[in-house]
Amino acid sequence: MYINHDDSRRYTVGVLVDNEPGVLSRVSGLFSRRGFNIESLTVGTTMDPEISRITIVVKGNDANIEQLVQQLYKLICVQKVQVMQPRNSVERQLLLVKVKAGVTEREGLMRLVDIFKAKVLDVTRTSMTLQITGENDKIASMLSLLEDYGILELVRTGVVALERGDGVMSSDIFD
Amino acid sequence: MYINHDDSRRYTVGVLVDNEPGVLSRVSGLFSRRGFNIESLTVGTTMDPEISRITIVVKGNDANIEQLVQQLYKLICVQKVQVMQPRNSVERQLLLVKVKAGVTEREGLMRLVDIFKAKVLDVTRTSMTLQITGENDKIASMLSLLEDYGILELVRTGVVALERGDGVMSSDIFD
Repeated sequence: MYINHDDSRRYTVGVLVDNEPGVLSRVSGLFSRRGFNIESLTVGTTMDPEISRITIVVKGNDANIEQLVQQLYKLICVQKVQVMQPRNSVERQLLLVKVKAGVTEREGLMRLVDIFKAKVLDVTRTSMTLQITGENDKIASMLSLLEDYGILELVRTGVVALERGDGVMSSDIFD
Repeated sequence: MYINHDDSRRYTVGVLVDNEPGVLSRVSGLFSRRGFNIESLTVGTTMDPEISRITIVVKGNDANIEQLVQQLYKLICVQKVQVMQPRNSVERQLLLVKVKAGVTEREGLMRLVDIFKAKVLDVTRTSMTLQITGENDKIASMLSLLEDYGILELVRTGVVALERGDGVMSSDIFD
């Protein structure tokens, strides 16, 4: 079956890997060799110091994501792979953003901070640094409103995701 | 001068890179070839779709971090590198955690949620999924308290950081 590029969508993939030097480079290298451009990637430790968890967001379609999962399992450092189901998972990311804000802009900005349940981390005479947490859509909405003030700098964590309910993505070694 | 491993500490490094396939693998490969084990790494887009921002936390000392920065600048895809100064920057990360919780545990867990300004994302008869945002210390404290309930699964974004004040880490191409 011919798979058209138009059926591509965002996939969030969770990968449990050995916590060793070089693992991240091997995993991200596999994505780039297969032509996937990584939209966001995070990696951090789990409760088991031997195991890290990588969360990757890429565009693809069901067929090439399935191939990618098979390729990932061929890497010795990969313990478990899970393609998150949007309807059955919670996804969040965190954004720090520095916005132009003098005395006259602060009031309006604080309104936005309240509405989006953001947090002020730093204020100067000419800028404010905010923290925003949420799903992609919420963060995109807030950013488009902040653009009116002038965004000086931003950094985002990229998406992390957990399955809803009691399901757990444990590494094979604990199964 | 002989640099002892004992003076190693955590460094948070911000890197602005071209948003292209393979860049992440090249950057993380440099860290592993130099023997740095990456404690956390995040990568996400900036306001400029051509530029992504990577935040990496590694252990090292002033001497080998300085070398690392020089090596990073030799990669064509690297636009700008900044070693964040702990006293002059804000650092945050986000954690999603699924905890064992039946009817009898919910009350106590909700207390912790209030104290740590966490957020409940999902509840089942036997588990709760929480979102926690903050500095490393706060997240570590909350996790150690949650361990009493039983942690089923967790995923963390890794640290992102911005300089305090009006300073901005812009890529050279905009300077």
